[in-house]
Amino acid sequence: MLENQDQTIVAPATARQSSALGIIRVSGKETLNIVGKVFHSKSLKSLKNAKGYHAYYGEIKDNNKTIDEVVCTVFLAPKSFTGENIVEISHHGSVYIQEKIIQLLISQGARLANKGEFSLRAFLNGKINLSQAEAIAELIASKNEANLQLAINQLRGGYNEALRQLRANFLHIASLLELEIDFSEEHEIFVDRDELNKLLDETILSLQELSNSFQQGNAFKNGIPVAIIGEANSGKSTLMNALVKHERSIVSDIKGTTRDTVEESIILKGVEYRFIDTAGLRKSQDEIEKQGIQRSYRAIENSKVVILVQDVSENKTIASLLKAEQKLLKDISLTDKQIVRVLNKTDKLSLSPKATADFEDKGYILISALKKEGIKAIIDAMTANYDTQTFADKIIVSNQRHYQALSKALQECLLARQANAMGLSSDLIAENIRLSTNYLGEITGEISNNEILDSIFSNFCIGK
Amino acid sequence: MLENQDQTIVAPATARQSSALGIIRVSGKETLNIVGKVFHSKSLKSLKNAKGYHAYYGEIKDNNKTIDEVVCTVFLAPKSFTGENIVEISHHGSVYIQEKIIQLLISQGARLANKGEFSLRAFLNGKINLSQAEAIAELIASKNEANLQLAINQLRGGYNEALRQLRANFLHIASLLELEIDFSEEHEIFVDRDELNKLLDETILSLQELSNSFQQGNAFKNGIPVAIIGEANSGKSTLMNALVKHERSIVSDIKGTTRDTVEESIILKGVEYRFIDTAGLRKSQDEIEKQGIQRSYRAIENSKVVILVQDVSENKTIASLLKAEQKLLKDISLTDKQIVRVLNKTDKLSLSPKATADFEDKGYILISALKKEGIKAIIDAMTANYDTQTFADKIIVSNQRHYQALSKALQECLLARQANAMGLSSDLIAENIRLSTNYLGEITGEISNNEILDSIFSNFCIGK
Repeated sequence: MLENQDQTIVAPATARQSSALGIIRVSGKETLNIVGKVFHSKSLKSLKNAKGYHAYYGEIKDNNKTIDEVVCTVFLAPKSFTGENIVEISHHGSVYIQEKIIQLLISQGARLANKGEFSLRAFLNGKINLSQAEAIAELIASKNEANLQLAINQLRGGYNEALRQLRANFLHIASLLELEIDFSEEHEIFVDRDELNKLLDETILSLQELSNSFQQGNAFKNGIPVAIIGEANSGKSTLMNALVKHERSIVSDIKGTTRDTVEESIILKGVEYRFIDTAGLRKSQDEIEKQGIQRSYRAIENSKVVILVQDVSENKTIASLLKAEQKLLKDISLTDKQIVRVLNKTDKLSLSPKATADFEDKGYILISALKKEGIKAIIDAMTANYDTQTFADKIIVSNQRHYQALSKALQECLLARQANAMGLSSDLIAENIRLSTNYLGEITGEISNNEILDSIFSNFCIGK
Repeated sequence: MLENQDQTIVAPATARQSSALGIIRVSGKETLNIVGKVFHSKSLKSLKNAKGYHAYYGEIKDNNKTIDEVVCTVFLAPKSFTGENIVEISHHGSVYIQEKIIQLLISQGARLANKGEFSLRAFLNGKINLSQAEAIAELIASKNEANLQLAINQLRGGYNEALRQLRANFLHIASLLELEIDFSEEHEIFVDRDELNKLLDETILSLQELSNSFQQGNAFKNGIPVAIIGEANSGKSTLMNALVKHERSIVSDIKGTTRDTVEESIILKGVEYRFIDTAGLRKSQDEIEKQGIQRSYRAIENSKVVILVQDVSENKTIASLLKAEQKLLKDISLTDKQIVRVLNKTDKLSLSPKATADFEDKGYILISALKKEGIKAIIDAMTANYDTQTFADKIIVSNQRHYQALSKALQECLLARQANAMGLSSDLIAENIRLSTNYLGEITGEISNNEILDSIFSNFCIGK
């Protein structure tokens, strides 16, 4: 993947689908030379005279045959995305034209870019760090406000500065500890062990905080798993439909909008909620051994929100409701879960204001899924803990790779603290601290290797 | 469609699909004001100070929340596609981000553009004529070299200049004829009738030439219909597969290329050839009444190329081949059709050099569809009459609307010539010439109405 960084690369930057405009991106040392051979503009004698951040109208010609009328926007090194000379060719959005221009540029000496190769060059040329490169891929993949805010925070730095500071401290201490090894015969001490312990304590706390935020970040990024559970005929499906319809009515009304219409997923206040299939639970107790039920329970274990639906026309007293609830929840661990208690089918009986107030005092939400009454109260309860507004103030890890690196760095810190507490020798402590530093460096790419780069950039789309 | 031309419009210009980049286009009087409210750049105090054909890096912000890092390219009126102020916002290619930025711009006073509304404005502001606007839509839809060359020729003028000249002559003559009407009592003659006749003759010839070219232009644009006919088991399907495979091996090897894989259509030398379903002909003679056979014959009537396949291992003499051929072609009108005579299954017998030469002298192409031998000779024969190279030298009408307008203009010319020959009065001749002029004017849009504009631009994609 890292080979041929001297070559000039070309790729489509827009989807290979008919549209008003398409963009082809060219980057590398020979960009102006290669594009210049096929681009002819009245306002520019030669593309080599082009200024950065300027657009030029002209024609792409294959010998004397005009292929398209285009606008070329020029970005000159180092003030460009990749840090190299870049030309972006804006052409009429036919896939055939796009392919033809790309072939022409290849015939003039460019080569087709690998996936993510523009971003890889931006990283290798120091324009962005690895975590920012990942943020770009996540921006492109973002499908809701939570995705967007997590990605844009990461692109704009995120916790990189905090990590950089931690690493700098660690590197300094590791050097001092290693100096002690060199001077071991003199029994010189360059690092105060109490201070080291204090620093390790602080760092462990920071890393634990970051690491713990992944639970929330991952949910924000991939969708909050929601389980709707309840007895058969309590109205679970009707409620889900009411929730889905409620969302549908508030989504964008831009014509031509295409959204993934996965019935089991809705966006509320910018966050995705994924409904977990709890169909297995509907079966009777004597089939408990069956796989379906096991799967449902496992799925419910992973949920963050449990909507517990009861038929208020069946269980009319708080006591009977609580009893039924205990039965429903008895095999489910409630740690880290939010329970939304819903009493359905208010349409089937007329509750006195006092009865209603009593139920609400106990935290029940009264609804009629059939008549779509009370749905907003459920949504308010579901979304109370997940607010994209909090992103700006809070550091949240949402990237799996970062989480793994943080966990490993934390592990090494814990080992270093232990070694220090046990009064072990400098070299052992230094080793743990070095390793921790390396894991932290992998996040931003201060430490990287071909394997890491390959696994990151090969997941990018072409042209990015 | 023509209302609200004072409003500033916004639309996505790239496909609503995840990709490296996406483009949003804004056009209208308030463009800089509206985009300026949400675009913040370190290199530009206010978008109102932006220069044309300049690109600016910055952020799109909704209040203080960053939505994306973008590059805005500014085109100032009148030097822009629409003739109005335009900003093209290049953002990270997520559909969610695109939608969010568009909604933000709408909240700042832009409205979502109708289909083709940017091109409509370009037309209304005199930047392009109607035929060029259509050429843009055809460029975007172009799927092969023939489509592209027809569209680019039309964009660059095509036969507009010729039509403009014809119209100017006609308008002049119509005025003179109408002057004669005013002076009818004085029996003044402003137009020499012999010269008028000569002009009409010339014009009729030109219009006939243009009109006739539509047969070819339409075939180039929509694909050349090809019928493969022959007795059962002569190897028609094997031949078609061999032709399709031959093409597949020479198409572009750019990774990620998506092509419509319609088995019954191939691109040869930049031109599409569509294989017509002649399955119905395989049935036996006694089923002649059946619909399938009728449909096959009608399809064959529309073909431009007929590949006539015979099994040379069955009919080994020229005489028997000719007899079988007559039988196959007896119900097919051969006007305007090219017949490619193919002798298949050379693998089944060993032909002497003399026999081979004899067949070839009679115009037969010897092949083995099974062994894929001789396929190139068929392709050379099929493509001999359809060469995209000729486009540059030749005026070809490929647009159905233009063809219809030309036909009507021609009809009026013929009527004018007849009226002139019969010595009818000036007003009658003038009427025909005026009508002819109007039909010609519809092609470039010198004459247009809402109905024409609506039918043209509503077929455009959004953002164009």
